[in-house]
Amino acid sequence: MAEQNLYHEITEEGFGIAIEKDGENIFEKQSEFQKTEVFNSRAFGKVLTLDGLMMVTEKDEFFYHEMIVHIPMLTHPNPKNILVIGGGDGGTVRELLKYDSVEHIDMVEIDEVVIEASKKYFPTVSCGLDDKRVSVLVQDAIEFIKDKKDCYDVVLIDSTDPIGPGVGLFNEGFYNNVKRALKKGGIVTPQTEGPFAQSENMKKTYELLRKVFKNVAPYCSPMPTYPGGYWSWGFCSDDIQAPSIDFKADKRADIISKTCKLYNPSLHGAVFQVPNFVKDLTK
Amino acid sequence: MAEQNLYHEITEEGFGIAIEKDGENIFEKQSEFQKTEVFNSRAFGKVLTLDGLMMVTEKDEFFYHEMIVHIPMLTHPNPKNILVIGGGDGGTVRELLKYDSVEHIDMVEIDEVVIEASKKYFPTVSCGLDDKRVSVLVQDAIEFIKDKKDCYDVVLIDSTDPIGPGVGLFNEGFYNNVKRALKKGGIVTPQTEGPFAQSENMKKTYELLRKVFKNVAPYCSPMPTYPGGYWSWGFCSDDIQAPSIDFKADKRADIISKTCKLYNPSLHGAVFQVPNFVKDLTK
Repeated sequence: MAEQNLYHEITEEGFGIAIEKDGENIFEKQSEFQKTEVFNSRAFGKVLTLDGLMMVTEKDEFFYHEMIVHIPMLTHPNPKNILVIGGGDGGTVRELLKYDSVEHIDMVEIDEVVIEASKKYFPTVSCGLDDKRVSVLVQDAIEFIKDKKDCYDVVLIDSTDPIGPGVGLFNEGFYNNVKRALKKGGIVTPQTEGPFAQSENMKKTYELLRKVFKNVAPYCSPMPTYPGGYWSWGFCSDDIQAPSIDFKADKRADIISKTCKLYNPSLHGAVFQVPNFVKDLTK
Repeated sequence: MAEQNLYHEITEEGFGIAIEKDGENIFEKQSEFQKTEVFNSRAFGKVLTLDGLMMVTEKDEFFYHEMIVHIPMLTHPNPKNILVIGGGDGGTVRELLKYDSVEHIDMVEIDEVVIEASKKYFPTVSCGLDDKRVSVLVQDAIEFIKDKKDCYDVVLIDSTDPIGPGVGLFNEGFYNNVKRALKKGGIVTPQTEGPFAQSENMKKTYELLRKVFKNVAPYCSPMPTYPGGYWSWGFCSDDIQAPSIDFKADKRADIISKTCKLYNPSLHGAVFQVPNFVKDLTK
């Protein structure tokens, strides 16, 4: 194997993934925020990275996007107005558009280069971004959220790691603003980092979430191309309890499940049953 | 980073893990079956590979060993006699020795070099191998199992992939012999490969298991250093149903859970709630 043509993402501890690149980058652009790169691979099809960190691959993006969307959306009884923070690739919006109840989605992405690259190279991911129910807003979500009140049923924080442009999204002031933007009965679900490979990031994120929301519960799934192959999201709400193991999703879940590679109703409560070490990190 | 000092395990599709090695190999020995290597790493402590494929790391071995042992053992009401096929590192035996009900464990490992390396370099993994309840048998499990009948309550197949010395363990004749070796109410749990990165191996394994056993169910867990970061095991029995989502483990589970980084009673039924694509692979 030509090692010189391996993409590596390796943590500070010295562990990570390697993907054989099929040729050189097919897209590279430095914005004021970060560098977006796209390459082909046999294993994952097209791959998009930001500042060298894995964001999206065609083959495994479904794990992340199905998990961040369907757990909060099918727990909320009737989600109409949705905010996506980050998520410029469009995968989260694609999953949200499966819901008849959804009237409007605001997607607030700071870096339009991510949107541009996804529209050009990831049509199966970005396919919903031109839908008439979607407003794509290229701006800083930290500013956007400051004056919002009682607007959204579900807020999804589809951000990068707490470095670079994502750092301000791991902040109590930001989360208080997100909470104020929720309608009654609203749910916030952020990505909350890798339980195994980024346990310190995850621990700090849950300390923060527990300061702001009454009900906070981590849920986890495999995510092959993210650090440790294992990822987490948070269920956060003041009004709605996190799903228990015997949570029974309503009939929407059967319809959604038929469109999914991962999600099914019996997984819904199961993903909240986390290992002991994840309980310890997030208590 | 010195890329020349990275350990890589990359699948045929061109995807895998990279671990920064801390120095050169501290152990290397070629047996008639395979090459065992041990090296140090910051991320995982000591790492053991067989023919260049990841077997054990000090930091993440708990995922594999807790999953292969505690799911079948806590589903069986009173497991006394246990067979481990493979498992020469000793991690499976270590977990089995947590059960007061266990009277005897036969561990049948084909390659004594694995046992030697684990005893020397992985004392926290191999610690149970000298226990008086354990017989370590260095021989081919395919031969060993041929004349066994009505001997074991639980059989754990802690094997390598279906290449090299492990290939004969993915075979209907072998599984029929394993089944004959079971006592009434017995359970067999093999490792059944990576659902995402080795989906063809997994599919073939379940076709085989369903030919031999009445009740077959996959269960899954993260496993950071195995291909795709995501692993599976099979629950197989003619007499006992696989745990449902609301499976209530008895009081043994609370005691075992206190010794575990992963296992807890609420996970027990949850790990059987697998993604749609895993259902499709294993139906």
